[in-house]
Amino acid sequence: MYKQKIAVNGKRLKETLEHFADFGRTKNNGVTRLSLSEEDRLARDYFRSCCEELNMTVQIDDMGNMYATLEGIENKPPIVVGSHMDTVKKGGRFDGILGVAAGLEVARTLVENNIKPQVPLTIVNFTNEEGARFEPSMMSSGVLSGKFEKAVMMKKTDTEGMTFEEALHSIGYAGDRKYRLTEATAFLELHIEQGPILERESLTIGVVECVVGMVCYEIEVTGESNHAGTTPMNMRKDALFTANDLIANARKKLSSLDKELVFTIGRMNITPNIHTVIPDKVVFSLEARHKDPTVIKQVEAIIRDLTQLPSEQDCTVKAEKLWGRDTVWFDESICHALEQSARSLVYPFKRMVSGAGHDAQFIASYIPSAMIFVPSIKGKSHSEDELTTWEDCEKGVNVLLETILTLKS
Amino acid sequence: MYKQKIAVNGKRLKETLEHFADFGRTKNNGVTRLSLSEEDRLARDYFRSCCEELNMTVQIDDMGNMYATLEGIENKPPIVVGSHMDTVKKGGRFDGILGVAAGLEVARTLVENNIKPQVPLTIVNFTNEEGARFEPSMMSSGVLSGKFEKAVMMKKTDTEGMTFEEALHSIGYAGDRKYRLTEATAFLELHIEQGPILERESLTIGVVECVVGMVCYEIEVTGESNHAGTTPMNMRKDALFTANDLIANARKKLSSLDKELVFTIGRMNITPNIHTVIPDKVVFSLEARHKDPTVIKQVEAIIRDLTQLPSEQDCTVKAEKLWGRDTVWFDESICHALEQSARSLVYPFKRMVSGAGHDAQFIASYIPSAMIFVPSIKGKSHSEDELTTWEDCEKGVNVLLETILTLKS
Repeated sequence: MYKQKIAVNGKRLKETLEHFADFGRTKNNGVTRLSLSEEDRLARDYFRSCCEELNMTVQIDDMGNMYATLEGIENKPPIVVGSHMDTVKKGGRFDGILGVAAGLEVARTLVENNIKPQVPLTIVNFTNEEGARFEPSMMSSGVLSGKFEKAVMMKKTDTEGMTFEEALHSIGYAGDRKYRLTEATAFLELHIEQGPILERESLTIGVVECVVGMVCYEIEVTGESNHAGTTPMNMRKDALFTANDLIANARKKLSSLDKELVFTIGRMNITPNIHTVIPDKVVFSLEARHKDPTVIKQVEAIIRDLTQLPSEQDCTVKAEKLWGRDTVWFDESICHALEQSARSLVYPFKRMVSGAGHDAQFIASYIPSAMIFVPSIKGKSHSEDELTTWEDCEKGVNVLLETILTLKS
Repeated sequence: MYKQKIAVNGKRLKETLEHFADFGRTKNNGVTRLSLSEEDRLARDYFRSCCEELNMTVQIDDMGNMYATLEGIENKPPIVVGSHMDTVKKGGRFDGILGVAAGLEVARTLVENNIKPQVPLTIVNFTNEEGARFEPSMMSSGVLSGKFEKAVMMKKTDTEGMTFEEALHSIGYAGDRKYRLTEATAFLELHIEQGPILERESLTIGVVECVVGMVCYEIEVTGESNHAGTTPMNMRKDALFTANDLIANARKKLSSLDKELVFTIGRMNITPNIHTVIPDKVVFSLEARHKDPTVIKQVEAIIRDLTQLPSEQDCTVKAEKLWGRDTVWFDESICHALEQSARSLVYPFKRMVSGAGHDAQFIASYIPSAMIFVPSIKGKSHSEDELTTWEDCEKGVNVLLETILTLKS
């Protein structure tokens, strides 16, 4: 039984994160490290060499996922920790890589303290979480969990026309299917929050109990184009003004649902989009996220109602569901262990949800999983301004270490 | 003194209009005859040959404007009639060309009736009214009236990089400055309404008393981009939702002004326009038209107020005036003569305004001018569906003929 507290080395963690950031660092101190790019190859090679220095076994599966394993006392399914090393274009120094560097720091701490974990510890780097070069996002965890078909993913192309499969071979990271992650005692993913809640509430640790469900609709308003100068107001079928009314109406109704509901109109296109012509078409996205499926159902009812409204401007409205996903609940006993770890380390924490998608949501379908969040300054991510303090990074890794030792000590 | 009524030949007018429509006819029975294109050259050549058959003198000025003149009894400044022969891409068979073909039909009717007008009759074809190939619109009447500088216009380029000057030479219509329209007894432009009012009110003739003034603003709303899933609603600076509120507010206030005011948001661009990202910028145009400058001033005050509003979403709002133009009033005695003509022909008519711009608004600055409108079916123009009945075309030309004979009979 492990009793004595050990702590990770914050200085070393910072140096490791800064070293990784050199693989694709932008002039504004962000990172561009697209999946399977040369920068990704260099980061992977560096990660491998760090792990091999610790006498970890490094294996690559057929999706290019990397697994570095430290032997345990018992030859049982490992505790797996990790995340991804790829970034979006002009992304930050923390999203993804923090979870991988955290695993490395945990392994280093165990090794330097001569602690052999009860079960093996595996650090994973999932290929192409961002989907920034090859869609979809969370591609490889999706293949591992059976959500995506490998054969289809291999044929995905980047903007230059290179396939995922070609890119995988070109950087020398096409491995063997037999190394795929198939079973584990637990999967733990440390990640930046990518939202402003922890910072606003002066908390250090988020114990993530779920990735919230979402729906995304596309709403199309069709009116009639006409001359902006010669058509009296009462003879117009103005798609933009009708869309304006619909959006006001939808916001009012959606705002009256649960306060944790988030909804966004991120995309809107106007046709013909000429200042002297009354628009005949407005198409916009409306997506909403909430952990409770009954709230999502209410959202869908509101969107359906929008298309039924008698429109003053005599336009037609269609709503099409582009996609949806159900809330993924993480393993309750692991969440409880994470809370216990944060409490024992005297870090302020709270249970929270993830509004963004993560590899853990797919892995959770066959391995008990959970996530740890650390604060994102101003909630920024997928941006060169992405920032988490070194101290918060360190505390997140301490929670990870403590939980690993607790789960199988 | 002319006393006996003569009438134009509707069948011949129709044939002439259909012949012109062959120069650029689209498969949907519209017309694409961009200014100074090969189709324009063919139409110009045809127009010239028709005029020369009537022993009219055809002259070309340095903007490529064509003037075909029928001698009058007195050698005084002519009565000028006409419009333009160019169209937008996939435009119609009536916009512009009706005014030129009308002049031709009037001349033919006079000649076949052996009527020599009291003063010379000049048919004008203004180059590049539409501005569809070379911006700005109403380019050549703008140069004639001193609104635009010739040297600047000559350098305007189309999307292929060809200058207006090169295009003018390439079709052989670069003439001499000395032929420019400098003085005239009157200028009369027959045009399709391009709006639905005459049709809706079962009228045949619109006596156009002015081209309404307008303002066009660009409004920019700046918020902050953030992740659509991880940012709580109360921590967003959503530029799209703020824009939506502004637009609703502006519509409410603008609707309470005079009922003849028209206002349009034709163009709107969202950044970054990704469904999973809260928009940080929305830029939209807001233009409004009314004959009364005090109403336009009220519109401008409303737009200024928008930028002062405390914004719930904590965004910033800027409004920039892109341009404006004052109402151009046509010559009252000519308008009166047009009414008299319509009355004597027993055509139902009304005084109205033009919401669209026309060459006549520039010419009116130095020549007594007015316009005649005939109904546009469903108000459509700048479209292959543009339609005016042959009967209404004929009646419009009869009003033109009657007025020419009245003005100097």
